Amino acid sequence: MSTIGFIGLGQMGTPMALNLIKGGHTLKVFDINQAAVQQLVAQGATAAASPAEAALDSEFVVTMLPNGTLVKNVILGENGVTSTLDKNALLIDMSTIHPLETDNLIKEMSDKGFSMMEAPVGRTSEHAVRGELLIMAGGTKEQVERAKPLFDCMGNETVDCGGAGKGIRVKIINNYMSIALNALSAEAATLSEAIGLDWDTAMKVMSGTPAGKGHFTTTWPGKVLAGDLSPVFMIDLAHKDLGIALDLANQVNVPMPCGAAAREVYNLTRGAGRGRQDWTAVLEQLRVSSGLEAKIK
Amino acid sequence: MSTIGFIGLGQMGTPMALNLIKGGHTLKVFDINQAAVQQLVAQGATAAASPAEAALDSEFVVTMLPNGTLVKNVILGENGVTSTLDKNALLIDMSTIHPLETDNLIKEMSDKGFSMMEAPVGRTSEHAVRGELLIMAGGTKEQVERAKPLFDCMGNETVDCGGAGKGIRVKIINNYMSIALNALSAEAATLSEAIGLDWDTAMKVMSGTPAGKGHFTTTWPGKVLAGDLSPVFMIDLAHKDLGIALDLANQVNVPMPCGAAAREVYNLTRGAGRGRQDWTAVLEQLRVSSGLEAKIK
Amino acid sequence: MSTIGFIGLGQMGTPMALNLIKGGHTLKVFDINQAAVQQLVAQGATAAASPAEAALDSEFVVTMLPNGTLVKNVILGENGVTSTLDKNALLIDMSTIHPLETDNLIKEMSDKGFSMMEAPVGRTSEHAVRGELLIMAGGTKEQVERAKPLFDCMGNETVDCGGAGKGIRVKIINNYMSIALNALSAEAATLSEAIGLDWDTAMKVMSGTPAGKGHFTTTWPGKVLAGDLSPVFMIDLAHKDLGIALDLANQVNVPMPCGAAAREVYNLTRGAGRGRQDWTAVLEQLRVSSGLEAKIK
Amino acid sequence: MSTIGFIGLGQMGTPMALNLIKGGHTLKVFDINQAAVQQLVAQGATAAASPAEAALDSEFVVTMLPNGTLVKNVILGENGVTSTLDKNALLIDMSTIHPLETDNLIKEMSDKGFSMMEAPVGRTSEHAVRGELLIMAGGTKEQVERAKPLFDCMGNETVDCGGAGKGIRVKIINNYMSIALNALSAEAATLSEAIGLDWDTAMKVMSGTPAGKGHFTTTWPGKVLAGDLSPVFMIDLAHKDLGIALDLANQVNVPMPCGAAAREVYNLTRGAGRGRQDWTAVLEQLRVSSGLEAKIK
Repeated sequence: MSTIGFIGLGQMGTPMALNLIKGGHTLKVFDINQAAVQQLVAQGATAAASPAEAALDSEFVVTMLPNGTLVKNVILGENGVTSTLDKNALLIDMSTIHPLETDNLIKEMSDKGFSMMEAPVGRTSEHAVRGELLIMAGGTKEQVERAKPLFDCMGNETVDCGGAGKGIRVKIINNYMSIALNALSAEAATLSEAIGLDWDTAMKVMSGTPAGKGHFTTTWPGKVLAGDLSPVFMIDLAHKDLGIALDLANQVNVPMPCGAAAREVYNLTRGAGRGRQDWTAVLEQLRVSSGLEAKIK
Repeated sequence: MSTIGFIGLGQMGTPMALNLIKGGHTLKVFDINQAAVQQLVAQGATAAASPAEAALDSEFVVTMLPNGTLVKNVILGENGVTSTLDKNALLIDMSTIHPLETDNLIKEMSDKGFSMMEAPVGRTSEHAVRGELLIMAGGTKEQVERAKPLFDCMGNETVDCGGAGKGIRVKIINNYMSIALNALSAEAATLSEAIGLDWDTAMKVMSGTPAGKGHFTTTWPGKVLAGDLSPVFMIDLAHKDLGIALDLANQVNVPMPCGAAAREVYNLTRGAGRGRQDWTAVLEQLRVSSGLEAKIK
Repeated sequence: MSTIGFIGLGQMGTPMALNLIKGGHTLKVFDINQAAVQQLVAQGATAAASPAEAALDSEFVVTMLPNGTLVKNVILGENGVTSTLDKNALLIDMSTIHPLETDNLIKEMSDKGFSMMEAPVGRTSEHAVRGELLIMAGGTKEQVERAKPLFDCMGNETVDCGGAGKGIRVKIINNYMSIALNALSAEAATLSEAIGLDWDTAMKVMSGTPAGKGHFTTTWPGKVLAGDLSPVFMIDLAHKDLGIALDLANQVNVPMPCGAAAREVYNLTRGAGRGRQDWTAVLEQLRVSSGLEAKIK
Repeated sequence: MSTIGFIGLGQMGTPMALNLIKGGHTLKVFDINQAAVQQLVAQGATAAASPAEAALDSEFVVTMLPNGTLVKNVILGENGVTSTLDKNALLIDMSTIHPLETDNLIKEMSDKGFSMMEAPVGRTSEHAVRGELLIMAGGTKEQVERAKPLFDCMGNETVDCGGAGKGIRVKIINNYMSIALNALSAEAATLSEAIGLDWDTAMKVMSGTPAGKGHFTTTWPGKVLAGDLSPVFMIDLAHKDLGIALDLANQVNVPMPCGAAAREVYNLTRGAGRGRQDWTAVLEQLRVSSGLEAKIK
């Protein structure tokens, strides 16, 4: 069992810290919100008057804060973590911040001789309460291994993302996909309602197709990811159907900005001469448009 | 077993017709592509010289054509289906066309005393070969029931979508979602590669979150669909994370037009004062922006 | 002076027809709205009971209708124009419809031996009243010349767009630009207000830059249109500034979907390796992305 | 004539500094690019070894740098401007940076007792050479007046934007509009070429309409800015025409993401019940969608 400085007791940080206590660890907690601090103290934590005090004599310091500026201040600012942190301790930032901020912090810490890794979390505050978070660990193999007992208190799945900065990047990709998908899904559901469909019926159909199951494990593996763009469903036909849906939406006044943007991506793909390729060719086209090397001749 | 006029022997129509023959039905087929016709004739179908000839004395006529103009011509044009169709026969359009074209056709047929329904199909040409299509049936209970033996030859799942015009609408919603999602997924995967992530690792994470599993059955049922917008994950935070992802993408030159459009949907949601609501509130916001009545106070 | 059948007496058609009467022409008018018809009759027009009657013995027939389906019905439908139209008469469609509908109509009319051209109009209903419309003429030199006296009654500027179908295409391009620009302008003005600027000050600045004067006659002629992409203002810097504006907008909850889409176009341009080219290179990039041949090495 | 510390000798900074010398001012210049420094020294400037040295004994310090991080470092970092700046001197940041960075810097400088204003510039490097820049001044009346002699050397028009932080905000709005407009214009021009139009003809038409002249001084003043939304050109018709243009573009493979986004803004406006209002109502709708108070009942 370890002594852990825990900084940031918000909606996620509080249950995470509680689960570390339940796991038998000794916690020194800091937050500007004294009510949150007292909630932890009531469960056995010690209140620290500053990040520096939380870090003093701790084997681990965990930060769980709302943005990168705060993380930087807490670590490097006045009475910050680095003013007391032991060179043998491990600092774990579990916040979701900009990956370039993470890179800069890890580099600056390393230059000063400190050990830092990032480990942002997935899922919800309810999962945090149950100790069932998904941990996306970014650090050396040694750092990930060392932090594993803490992760096991807070989550039930740890993914080693492959090195420093990779954890926060996987998190950002995951959030990008789920957050944008939420908006796209809202477009489909609103159109469905506006044209008089029963949602359960629409759902029943979509739950058995890529509409509900996604493409990562259905249409992509056998086609674009396998280097095969012979058409199962042609770009030109997908483009046509998307146009029908948008036309319909525009007749019933359902704004579908994500779908409208998607149609232009198919249009771009057609402009590149891929109209008769499989619809999964949008991935290859977007790769090429981003300056990545073409994978499929 | 029935006599069926089948019109439209393309990538989907051909295996569908073949499966009807395998099911014991008698087919009269028409297509302008004589090679396709001969392929069916070799399996026991009769070649028809026109849609009219295919429809003559048939209990069912199935149309499977690439666009609405063709469907209309085949049915109502010179030597079209209606010039010979029996008033007791059932015409089933299985094409994917604009729902308003479907509505107009069904109305025009009904005015002339004919019985018509639509039944577009889901899944791929490979499923068509195996008789495993998903049939989205739009018609009266009686029509759907009457057509069921045919559907069972061509598909392994029939969804009664709730009335005339509803089948094609469910199909369009399903296609909208899957086609736009394909483009959005390409954005996430391209960014993932551009920032140096291992795709299998990113996939592993996403397969356990709404990024991979979608929102319809995960985040929505307990929140927005239940009328509860208290935040598990706040709009403001989702908006922030989406901004980080887009910033990152713009630094490595990965165009993400769908995600950029989605960010503005969150921004719109914030502009409506919903920043501290649950992220599933984008559905409610989009509903209201479309002029639908607010469901959640 | 000519005898003219005029069909379609809406917000635009009514003043156009009135100006033809003022110009000394003899009008036979048709509309389903009898009040509109009577307004013209009061000014000396004759009421026609059908498009056919309006076309009978007329040297010109003008159609000014809200959509292509109506134009087609009026011309080719029951009691339509072609049932009485003289082969020596000229049919002029001044409606704004889909260019492919125009193409089809002109071809069908030509096949039947009739002479038809299109001449959609620009500017507003107020200009229509004053006889100051802009006429975008699409037809042969002979057709345009023949129709010129009529155009001179309704407008004060006629542009010969270069052949059949070109008039409606110029109109659609012009409308595309002005309609989309209206939305983009609204984004800039709303952001301006949201961040506390005085609109007159912002306007004063923009009226002297491409923001207010456009690019067609300012930044483009000396650069991309002249084949020169050496940077006066680099793509990378334009992309950066656009990002700042969008970030600001997202902080004050101003949705800017057009600008967000534009940023991704710059991103696409960067992905193609044009980051250090002049900002006018977006035109060349979009041309290439559309499959047009590169003009600039 | 004044002694001026000038920091940042890039494509814009170099000609600006040269024009200050031509105007009779004494310059101490700093840049990490020694070639740029020597070019100024050859014209009579003194080379400074650091920002601090450039600021020492100067009445004005001008910064013209590529991003906000650099501006902050040059001002507040080691050997930065503030280490030597006189409390009576005026620091003028002419860079284009994020307005919130400007706000923070001005506040921090003010807290330390220094006087700082911002004055970003408009137009191109060629205008910079000719001393014809547009200066967007953000500061107190006194600061703007004091800096005016310097502005008059570098530009031929100074706009007092109304206070600290307002200059950079006007600049960002202006750049937003011109940069996004560039992309939108490219869409119109590419479509024009793809459908076979002569560009000069299209230009001739657009130069006389809001497509080329913009909306700020044409359609808006008499309608939405005057509180009048009675339709000269209805939202529903503008929406229809935009749909035609996008359909056409999608048939010839011209991606038009800005226009596609704009269509959804009109759709949103229709969803709010404004379909029969004047097209300038998109401004009012976007204002309301941003949480600003409705101006028009």
